[in-house]
Amino acid sequence: MKKNQQPVYYGEYLQLDKLLGAQTLQSSKYGPPAHEETLFIIVHQTYELWFKQILHELSSVMDVFCEQQVKDQQLTTVVHRLKRVISIQELLNDQIGIMETMSPQQFLSFRDYLVPASGFQSIQFKMLEISLGLKRGTRIDFDKQSFYNRLNQSDRDFLEQLEQKPSLFELTQSWLERLPLLEFGDFKFWQLYRDATEKMLASDEQIIRSNPTLSDKERRQEIKELESTRETFSTLWNEEKYSKWQADDQFRLSQKALMAALFINQYSEEPLFNLPYQFITCLTEIDEKLTIWRYRHAMMVQRMLGGKIGTGGSSGHEYLKRTTETNRIFQDFFNMATFLLPKEALPDLPVSVRQHLGFALSQN
Amino acid sequence: MKKNQQPVYYGEYLQLDKLLGAQTLQSSKYGPPAHEETLFIIVHQTYELWFKQILHELSSVMDVFCEQQVKDQQLTTVVHRLKRVISIQELLNDQIGIMETMSPQQFLSFRDYLVPASGFQSIQFKMLEISLGLKRGTRIDFDKQSFYNRLNQSDRDFLEQLEQKPSLFELTQSWLERLPLLEFGDFKFWQLYRDATEKMLASDEQIIRSNPTLSDKERRQEIKELESTRETFSTLWNEEKYSKWQADDQFRLSQKALMAALFINQYSEEPLFNLPYQFITCLTEIDEKLTIWRYRHAMMVQRMLGGKIGTGGSSGHEYLKRTTETNRIFQDFFNMATFLLPKEALPDLPVSVRQHLGFALSQN
Amino acid sequence: MKKNQQPVYYGEYLQLDKLLGAQTLQSSKYGPPAHEETLFIIVHQTYELWFKQILHELSSVMDVFCEQQVKDQQLTTVVHRLKRVISIQELLNDQIGIMETMSPQQFLSFRDYLVPASGFQSIQFKMLEISLGLKRGTRIDFDKQSFYNRLNQSDRDFLEQLEQKPSLFELTQSWLERLPLLEFGDFKFWQLYRDATEKMLASDEQIIRSNPTLSDKERRQEIKELESTRETFSTLWNEEKYSKWQADDQFRLSQKALMAALFINQYSEEPLFNLPYQFITCLTEIDEKLTIWRYRHAMMVQRMLGGKIGTGGSSGHEYLKRTTETNRIFQDFFNMATFLLPKEALPDLPVSVRQHLGFALSQN
Amino acid sequence: MKKNQQPVYYGEYLQLDKLLGAQTLQSSKYGPPAHEETLFIIVHQTYELWFKQILHELSSVMDVFCEQQVKDQQLTTVVHRLKRVISIQELLNDQIGIMETMSPQQFLSFRDYLVPASGFQSIQFKMLEISLGLKRGTRIDFDKQSFYNRLNQSDRDFLEQLEQKPSLFELTQSWLERLPLLEFGDFKFWQLYRDATEKMLASDEQIIRSNPTLSDKERRQEIKELESTRETFSTLWNEEKYSKWQADDQFRLSQKALMAALFINQYSEEPLFNLPYQFITCLTEIDEKLTIWRYRHAMMVQRMLGGKIGTGGSSGHEYLKRTTETNRIFQDFFNMATFLLPKEALPDLPVSVRQHLGFALSQN
Repeated sequence: MKKNQQPVYYGEYLQLDKLLGAQTLQSSKYGPPAHEETLFIIVHQTYELWFKQILHELSSVMDVFCEQQVKDQQLTTVVHRLKRVISIQELLNDQIGIMETMSPQQFLSFRDYLVPASGFQSIQFKMLEISLGLKRGTRIDFDKQSFYNRLNQSDRDFLEQLEQKPSLFELTQSWLERLPLLEFGDFKFWQLYRDATEKMLASDEQIIRSNPTLSDKERRQEIKELESTRETFSTLWNEEKYSKWQADDQFRLSQKALMAALFINQYSEEPLFNLPYQFITCLTEIDEKLTIWRYRHAMMVQRMLGGKIGTGGSSGHEYLKRTTETNRIFQDFFNMATFLLPKEALPDLPVSVRQHLGFALSQN
Repeated sequence: MKKNQQPVYYGEYLQLDKLLGAQTLQSSKYGPPAHEETLFIIVHQTYELWFKQILHELSSVMDVFCEQQVKDQQLTTVVHRLKRVISIQELLNDQIGIMETMSPQQFLSFRDYLVPASGFQSIQFKMLEISLGLKRGTRIDFDKQSFYNRLNQSDRDFLEQLEQKPSLFELTQSWLERLPLLEFGDFKFWQLYRDATEKMLASDEQIIRSNPTLSDKERRQEIKELESTRETFSTLWNEEKYSKWQADDQFRLSQKALMAALFINQYSEEPLFNLPYQFITCLTEIDEKLTIWRYRHAMMVQRMLGGKIGTGGSSGHEYLKRTTETNRIFQDFFNMATFLLPKEALPDLPVSVRQHLGFALSQN
Repeated sequence: MKKNQQPVYYGEYLQLDKLLGAQTLQSSKYGPPAHEETLFIIVHQTYELWFKQILHELSSVMDVFCEQQVKDQQLTTVVHRLKRVISIQELLNDQIGIMETMSPQQFLSFRDYLVPASGFQSIQFKMLEISLGLKRGTRIDFDKQSFYNRLNQSDRDFLEQLEQKPSLFELTQSWLERLPLLEFGDFKFWQLYRDATEKMLASDEQIIRSNPTLSDKERRQEIKELESTRETFSTLWNEEKYSKWQADDQFRLSQKALMAALFINQYSEEPLFNLPYQFITCLTEIDEKLTIWRYRHAMMVQRMLGGKIGTGGSSGHEYLKRTTETNRIFQDFFNMATFLLPKEALPDLPVSVRQHLGFALSQN
Repeated sequence: MKKNQQPVYYGEYLQLDKLLGAQTLQSSKYGPPAHEETLFIIVHQTYELWFKQILHELSSVMDVFCEQQVKDQQLTTVVHRLKRVISIQELLNDQIGIMETMSPQQFLSFRDYLVPASGFQSIQFKMLEISLGLKRGTRIDFDKQSFYNRLNQSDRDFLEQLEQKPSLFELTQSWLERLPLLEFGDFKFWQLYRDATEKMLASDEQIIRSNPTLSDKERRQEIKELESTRETFSTLWNEEKYSKWQADDQFRLSQKALMAALFINQYSEEPLFNLPYQFITCLTEIDEKLTIWRYRHAMMVQRMLGGKIGTGGSSGHEYLKRTTETNRIFQDFFNMATFLLPKEALPDLPVSVRQHLGFALSQN
């Protein structure tokens, strides 16, 4: 206890007068209070408090990656904080179940008083999306239009500025590009890797051709899909083709960054790659949990409104469902398995490469 | 304790010798055992045990509805058992997180040995889908084709027979149709209801037109969607149109059943409708949980395989995601909110109608 | 949308300026901000918001039971709201896992600045305990002492007034006592019940005596425990003995109320008793979840502090663990199984009794 | 796909004939089947399958620690597998909620047929306890007695042999003792540490003495507890005293091991200690989850049986609750916070010590 420290009282420390005085029912303004409006407000308020916490963690993580060099000790902290974000996301996903204790009919008793407020207007949620790396261009049409014109001017300005700053996606990409995982002197890692993938795809093809439970039609379809996987692989080694795919949003990461991430995934048990692997895995899970949240949220809206319009004046659930496909950020990590080889098919790393990596990474 | 009762021993009662002796690794047949194959087997085995439990509950519920008359006391039991099913489903959804502790690379170390086995071949899961009411016709194309040709003959025969029996969907539909909720002598309930909905839609239209945050383009879009809701409502009162929509799978329930369900939803706090409402809500939640399971399962498969083919020789996750839309069974309950009115807009039920209902329902 | 209705903006409706401006770090006053203090504050703030929601539901439930007559329609609402409370409690229990993402060392970096604030000072948590029915007399010694002297005067006065009002426990007890379940004209229900229990206990005794896996010492111990169960049963039929046990806190409910609750438990599938049974079960689960919360909270405190003192100046976890035993409220419902008979051992209710019950209950 | 590989069929691979044919109701032998007995069996069977999985992971972890040297790469794998165990434990804790969907009355309808089977007879659960490090001596009295005499001879022999092998507790202890964290040449780490703790305790004492919200009685009590913490600290530096406390079960770990664990906890963000810290944290969480399981299980038994005897002929819940205190294994890790200092109070590690540690650990 510091000298001159003032004694702290629980309720004052938590500013409970503000917090517990911030539930004003709209329904009360026009008639008797709707019992469930309190739930509606408190569910949204706890969401906003948790969003603040998530942004607090993300912002500290982004500060680390803004520097040229990221030390292992910092990665320990980064991974710890991202795991906390994931824990919070799990809670937020479960919290949808609490909103669902309100029946559609109960919602109808105050819905009209909330017009035209809308979850679209949650600045913190937009901050979360933008900080992670969602670009206006990749949002779906409806979202692009309405992303900004539902906001008041100061909120709009604030978010537009945020869009100019590097996102966690971009920071991660630069960091991956800086890792020395593409060239190892004489050791032709990527050539060996390429050979191994071709062998694996040939084996997959044989599996399809010899599978007795497939009809001819199915077999043709499977072979077609295998060809498309082969095509996907070939883009990895072809800079020009890769750029084209990237332009089409088939990849979001640069070729260099994707290959570095692939390398880390393949050698994840190496102590050297343990923290980078955990970092990548955390980003993948944050994206996955966010997508699951979007999906459950869309279902909840559907159940609550059916074909009716929401308070913001739009029938949201179809739109919300589409965002589960379009608003993915770290999809390349998520799809990484496409390019993975079984451990026994991997080229052995020569001692000289290991030593070089150890040194080079600690200097990254 | 009954006379002559044999003493029971824990391990024998649970037949643990069978149970714990049923994990034979494929990888061990061709080389060193893959550590994670044990997890893969046990996750699937616990799923199958829980499927057995769910089928046990569903089958007892269906027995009740096979009878002409369903007593309130039976509904108590039915609701209790369906809630148990929902609890199990929550566990099954969380269980996906355990499978995800296996990394894609770990999966690759034994994937090839499992060819061409596939989750498609889970008879119990198919039984679950068929018992609930999923029809071959509504399955998506890929599923229609492969639903049966991956099974051995006896499994195929078994499921084809099951498809001939009335499903829980059909039994529920008949029960709803038998409830005397469409005619109340002189009391023109449905006419009053229709008037009230038209008033509500007019108000919604005004909300859209006066919403200052919408662009013109958005407003046109919203009005278009409102018109489609109006159209949807109008089908409710039009037998011919309803049949057409039903033929197009816009509705699955018959008009009579849908209207009875709507009535129950609207008057759910009436003690008389409490159990029927809980029953309908349970079915809605079972469908919702199943859909969330399908979605999380599809994401897990994507993360595990990326664009690779699965053990059954198909790149499953795209297909699996599509089933979240097509393989819905009680979607009409789920979309019921479309037709709901706020409580204060509802016609009051005259005493004579209440008495009539009380008597009629207890005789249903 | 009402005429003259003001348009609502998301952030204003939720009063986010207040809410998101209410996180002031103590650590910042004396040095660099402690990163984890934000988490500490937000976890507590979300708890307080949820406590407000729980109190909102409980208070509406208590209003219902303050009236002489509780209608079935009201019980529907009551059960719906208590189930919501249970859902919230599940979230609150899981939320402890988020606090646990803070390591003990991280907590130490700002603990000293919070002195002497303490979770004991959460007025809403005390309101929750008092509203449910926790009496100062049954609190454990340490709690009795410190319950009030840590609060400021106005908080203390507020809670002392609340202690004078009837709690949910007392309201439930009165309602149970008013139910006509103890006398049924000529039908000697409770005599038949007593005979059946004696038969069951005799059978239990035989099970113990003939169990070959018990040692002599164990068998003597088991027989002793059975005798104590027999003793417990006998108090049920003996008003004087019951009062003595009640005075010793062996029972909290009055004899009349306990027997009514027992009757409801035994005939829970009867539609007539379905809602009362659900109501009792909800109270049992609220008590259970609260106890699990206390237990997990105590473990979290132990992990965070070990033998150190907390911010309030006490080494809390031992005390907290003891509250899981003492601060139970609906323990008599929780222990109800002591008195239950298997369904086949129950006396059949004569038709005249059923009819009488139907009428009497609807008039309660 | 290997040459000559046999095609695999889902149901055969999972041996579903065995698995789904292993539910034989006892109630069916003596009368109509009790509907809920199926649930009872399947809940226990899924528990046993998951126990098998947990034992599979633990056994592979123990193999690693049986070797003289544990490499970082192996620690990566160890931590990964222990985290999987924790995920499974979370599922098992939630699974208690499914058993609770069975009402006490439903359980009574088949309880008598199971006599004298008992959860005590789960060999795998005993294996789990013994593998982790639970000793017969530390079990509570009742458990000591009945631990073995309820088992058949072969089960008894099997477990007695297992008790002779080193447990994970012992292996962890030896590994900690081997780490070179107690002597650092000229650097007097532990002397500095000791000085710092004394300063911290003096500050804690001042907090208590100046806390205006404490009554005199409370203050005396708090000072007494602080003295006991001081006493606890002093044992750390006193070999003789430590041995005495260890003999009294106040500590389970040896002094050397405890101090090594303390060092790791204090410097957990150092990349060097990141994996050891994660390993220790996993063991702490496994113990915590197991304790929460015991607690929830005890409450479930109480709710199901009240004061009645269980199928094994004992009134279990009081006993079960006591095991939450006695059957702790890694309690010293759990209580580690007692000895932790805030980061800013820690002695700085000189560069020479860091270098020495880096080398020494990689050779451990």
